[in-house]
Amino acid sequence: MECNTEDISTKFKNGEFTFTVIGLGRIGLPTASIIANKGAKVYGYDININAIEKLKAGISVIDEPGLDPIVKNVVSKNLLIPTNDPKEAISNSDIIIVCLPTPVTLDKIPDYSAIIECFNNISKYIKKGSLIIIESTISPGTVENLIIPLIEKNSNLKVIRDFGIASCPERANPGEIVTKFNEIPRIIGGIDSKSTKIVANIYKNIVDSNLILVSNPKTANAVKLTENIFRDVNIALINELAILFEKLEIDIFEIINAAKTKWNFVPHYPGAGVGGPCLPSNPYYLIQEAIKVDYVPHIIRFAREINDRMPHHLIELVMKSLNIIGKSVKSSKISVLGLSYKPNIADYQLSPAFPFVHELRKLGPIVQIYDPYFKGKSINDLYIENDLESTLTNADCLVFITDHDLFKKLDFNYILKFTNKPLIIVDGRNTFDIKSIPKNIIYRSIGRLLINNS
Amino acid sequence: MECNTEDISTKFKNGEFTFTVIGLGRIGLPTASIIANKGAKVYGYDININAIEKLKAGISVIDEPGLDPIVKNVVSKNLLIPTNDPKEAISNSDIIIVCLPTPVTLDKIPDYSAIIECFNNISKYIKKGSLIIIESTISPGTVENLIIPLIEKNSNLKVIRDFGIASCPERANPGEIVTKFNEIPRIIGGIDSKSTKIVANIYKNIVDSNLILVSNPKTANAVKLTENIFRDVNIALINELAILFEKLEIDIFEIINAAKTKWNFVPHYPGAGVGGPCLPSNPYYLIQEAIKVDYVPHIIRFAREINDRMPHHLIELVMKSLNIIGKSVKSSKISVLGLSYKPNIADYQLSPAFPFVHELRKLGPIVQIYDPYFKGKSINDLYIENDLESTLTNADCLVFITDHDLFKKLDFNYILKFTNKPLIIVDGRNTFDIKSIPKNIIYRSIGRLLINNS
Repeated sequence: MECNTEDISTKFKNGEFTFTVIGLGRIGLPTASIIANKGAKVYGYDININAIEKLKAGISVIDEPGLDPIVKNVVSKNLLIPTNDPKEAISNSDIIIVCLPTPVTLDKIPDYSAIIECFNNISKYIKKGSLIIIESTISPGTVENLIIPLIEKNSNLKVIRDFGIASCPERANPGEIVTKFNEIPRIIGGIDSKSTKIVANIYKNIVDSNLILVSNPKTANAVKLTENIFRDVNIALINELAILFEKLEIDIFEIINAAKTKWNFVPHYPGAGVGGPCLPSNPYYLIQEAIKVDYVPHIIRFAREINDRMPHHLIELVMKSLNIIGKSVKSSKISVLGLSYKPNIADYQLSPAFPFVHELRKLGPIVQIYDPYFKGKSINDLYIENDLESTLTNADCLVFITDHDLFKKLDFNYILKFTNKPLIIVDGRNTFDIKSIPKNIIYRSIGRLLINNS
Repeated sequence: MECNTEDISTKFKNGEFTFTVIGLGRIGLPTASIIANKGAKVYGYDININAIEKLKAGISVIDEPGLDPIVKNVVSKNLLIPTNDPKEAISNSDIIIVCLPTPVTLDKIPDYSAIIECFNNISKYIKKGSLIIIESTISPGTVENLIIPLIEKNSNLKVIRDFGIASCPERANPGEIVTKFNEIPRIIGGIDSKSTKIVANIYKNIVDSNLILVSNPKTANAVKLTENIFRDVNIALINELAILFEKLEIDIFEIINAAKTKWNFVPHYPGAGVGGPCLPSNPYYLIQEAIKVDYVPHIIRFAREINDRMPHHLIELVMKSLNIIGKSVKSSKISVLGLSYKPNIADYQLSPAFPFVHELRKLGPIVQIYDPYFKGKSINDLYIENDLESTLTNADCLVFITDHDLFKKLDFNYILKFTNKPLIIVDGRNTFDIKSIPKNIIYRSIGRLLINNS
């Protein structure tokens, strides 16, 4: 493939490049749809047959603002071709973009099974001169030591000579993937400078944001992990301080609001736990890579432990708060509000709601869960109630796991019409203004002083 | 004392308030001088007789840009009265501002001996109606549990009834204390709301910046510690990553420069160690307070350990780099450039140069140290050479501990005229552009790839 800028732009605009996007999830489907929407022919390849059938009908399979009309448009114009046939997709493509999930196992080891299976299946169809772009989050070295050997083993191709490859890790924010597609600079690290340049010239036609070129795939992957580790560690630090300040009877929000008036302080906030597809797993990618070179990154590791322990801290707050009114957990009805890992989105990936409810159930209370984004659904082993009122009815304690806007707008007098009194509220997201807590409520949030208006 | 705003302003302007500033060091002397420069009568109290004598002659005792002319002016006008007589100062003062040092011991325990000794000496002279302001950095609870009891024990006064007290922890940046005096918001936490309000109204007359009022002294102190812990932890995280990325052969500066293009990433930089009066000690104030309530803040503690270990990491880089040219440390001359804990300032407090040189000396090389801010002086047990050329002469290895501008401007050809060749440079501060490293130099910096131009 040529790496001349104008050449690539002209070819892109003339529709001379065919793409395959592998993995039509939260990153892959928007990416495939947006590229197709620029006029290129894009195969959308996924092994999920149900998803492919829905997509063929022009129906999006993920809930992402702004995505539905684009999917409908590009499928109807035959620009996005959903398929579960790797031969059809790969053998007709010049550019292959991999957006497969890379979770961690229960042992917190990176799980590359989707990537391994994919390259075992598709490599034999890769054309000479193809370019492979890895958007999945992976450890530094995974392109060099896992993916390239897999492709070479399963094809007659040799990297650099016969195909180019680069990491361009997605940095998108779920909920803003389409709407802010052009705002987030892309990090591009190719196996050689030609791969890097070609990918840059292709992305110039796809996205309007800055392109940051780095030395190699492992550097690009380390950038992605470092960004999320920075956030995970800073959230863990503020959680660590929040728990300490509870003991010292200092309000962490007073601290954050005062400290952020200093030029070099950046606020992060305590909470019920860190969920989502990235933060709870990305640090383990680097931790495992570090362990391989006999190095334990203590800060990164402890940050994970602290954030993973926050649902347990919430349980403690529930027990202590019920104790004030002389109730045990076992004799109480506890209603959990929120399943999503962040507000105003139907995404429950690694939500702290799961470990919280699992630990809570062991203590024997009646537990009901409500989330407006999952009404009446069973998610893993949790059933989400159909309506808020029945969830509130006779509750002794409400626990807020997610700060959906709908919860923020709840009126305490409305709540108290249904619940028992006094009502315990354990607020895992600082959902409410502490000055607004009325009579009949005992309010406890993370890192703040108890408010006992019973 | 009245707490009406106009009243306090009028009294301040009419010179009706007399101040004592206790401790004429890096914070106390600028504070005393600036208040006196506003027209108020200020006693500057310190137990260091030499400092008092110099100050009486109008000569500043600390090196802080912009301070000398103010000191000269306010002493000559008799507005700042340096004294080592607590009776003269305190019994004539309405407002007492404490700027005493609060270091940690070798066991990393907060050392409040200066504060304890001070209040044992001065409390009996405190007038009824006085206001005491603690600018020193202290643990949350130190005003409430140590200082107030000390004053009450050594006087006939009762807090709130007879005297007000507040914490207003200094947040100044050495080197910019005078020039940016008005830019940094002040945190004010009084023992009662009256103390908080009076302090706020007094500071309004002293400083132009925003005043942030918090609930109590312990909250104000926790703000100060949280700010510095945030910085210490983030520097430690980047040091932890830098050491890992050395092993993975990834350049940490490429990572930082790429990652900072993401909206929620804030860059910090790796280095030879964290020095100065605040960062190496402040975290221990909170760690000790946490241990008292049976809580170990692992992230904060590991951050300290990692930052304290950086001088040792530099030793490793020195040994590995000398090994490339087949030299032992013992048979080498190693020249250390920089003693200050940060650039362009004559301040060596808790500089990583000390542990670095101590560990280096145990390996037996010839060691010379040069810092333009301490030429020809003996600082603790280190002698700082009088001239750069003799320090460079016959050196096998240069180690940069401080990135003084004067070092940044050094020309490699000039350096190589004096040193042995090939020359090892171990750069603890990323002082040089890695693209500028010429022939005959092996260059190693923290978190970056080795550059071997030998």
